[in-house]
Amino acid sequence: MITDRLRQQIDFIVEVDKIKQIYRQNYVIGGERHETDAEHSWHLAVMAVLLAEHVAGHQIDVLKVLKMVLIHDIVEIDAGDTYCFDQQAGLDKNERETKAADRLFGLLPADQAQEFRSLWEEFEHRGSPEACLADALDRLQPLLLHCHTQGKSWKEHGITSAKVYERNQRTGTIAPELGQLVAETIQTAVAKGYLPE
Amino acid sequence: MITDRLRQQIDFIVEVDKIKQIYRQNYVIGGERHETDAEHSWHLAVMAVLLAEHVAGHQIDVLKVLKMVLIHDIVEIDAGDTYCFDQQAGLDKNERETKAADRLFGLLPADQAQEFRSLWEEFEHRGSPEACLADALDRLQPLLLHCHTQGKSWKEHGITSAKVYERNQRTGTIAPELGQLVAETIQTAVAKGYLPE
Repeated sequence: MITDRLRQQIDFIVEVDKIKQIYRQNYVIGGERHETDAEHSWHLAVMAVLLAEHVAGHQIDVLKVLKMVLIHDIVEIDAGDTYCFDQQAGLDKNERETKAADRLFGLLPADQAQEFRSLWEEFEHRGSPEACLADALDRLQPLLLHCHTQGKSWKEHGITSAKVYERNQRTGTIAPELGQLVAETIQTAVAKGYLPE
Repeated sequence: MITDRLRQQIDFIVEVDKIKQIYRQNYVIGGERHETDAEHSWHLAVMAVLLAEHVAGHQIDVLKVLKMVLIHDIVEIDAGDTYCFDQQAGLDKNERETKAADRLFGLLPADQAQEFRSLWEEFEHRGSPEACLADALDRLQPLLLHCHTQGKSWKEHGITSAKVYERNQRTGTIAPELGQLVAETIQTAVAKGYLPE
């Protein structure tokens, strides 16, 4: 018989499979369908490995960033995906997601539940350089996908460049060159007609 | 202007988005569709964080395991998913995947290309305790999904318990309790009629 500890871990692992059925607003490149939260989280993790070197003035704990980006959207299994430009849905986002964190991380053995809960809260509050990088990547990744899908989702939602700038404004503070990348990407999107000014 | 280095990193990040359109043979739990390689890789990464403690006799470098599982299927963007029980397709798998690794990792700056290539080869050859854990998880994760989808994919391909045991036989060597989990999971699948003996 396996231990209760391993059983709890496996119960969590099986439960979070549901994140593969949470669809985001952006499309996958070259595809006709929206991206899932699991795919988005995988992409952020690969980006974190490659781009952590661009953070200025801090020695980044890459393992911590990876754990953060891998679990940052797990609460959406219960709380649903809240579209970042939807102000109405944003009003009760915290309440919905806190309740979801209680239930989902609560499936784990106490020490791992505590670790995941702390990492998620640190991410949500941008409480460390690692969390600031994770947050910047969480905004940069959809920006790249929007640009490579001709702004399809932006157009569907009437998003302007001012909104996209605002959403990515902190990137340059944690990683100046990534901030420059954000600016160039938005300029290109505007020039190509993917995003109205 | 961003540097050539960052441009190469972003080119790779955009290219590997294609992994979201590589579909595996197993289904997502409760869903009607097959799982994508990106979703599978995300799931392995979460499992690695939680289950690395079960490896016996080695201090596991979790960051290394995470990097391995995050990139282990990137070669399938060019080489396609080779179904693990398809002996015919397995014949030229190495050749197809090596060519894919040359092209895909070659998009990165030389040092990161070298790191990802080495990690992928170490994974493929089970060349370290980290690679053995990554490999065991790569076999355990679909086993869990098959069991939670009533063996739908096993039945479609006529897979028997002997084949599944064989595919997971090394797990107990790297992590005895995970080996026990594999055995119990297969027994349950047989008892429930999801998998013929």
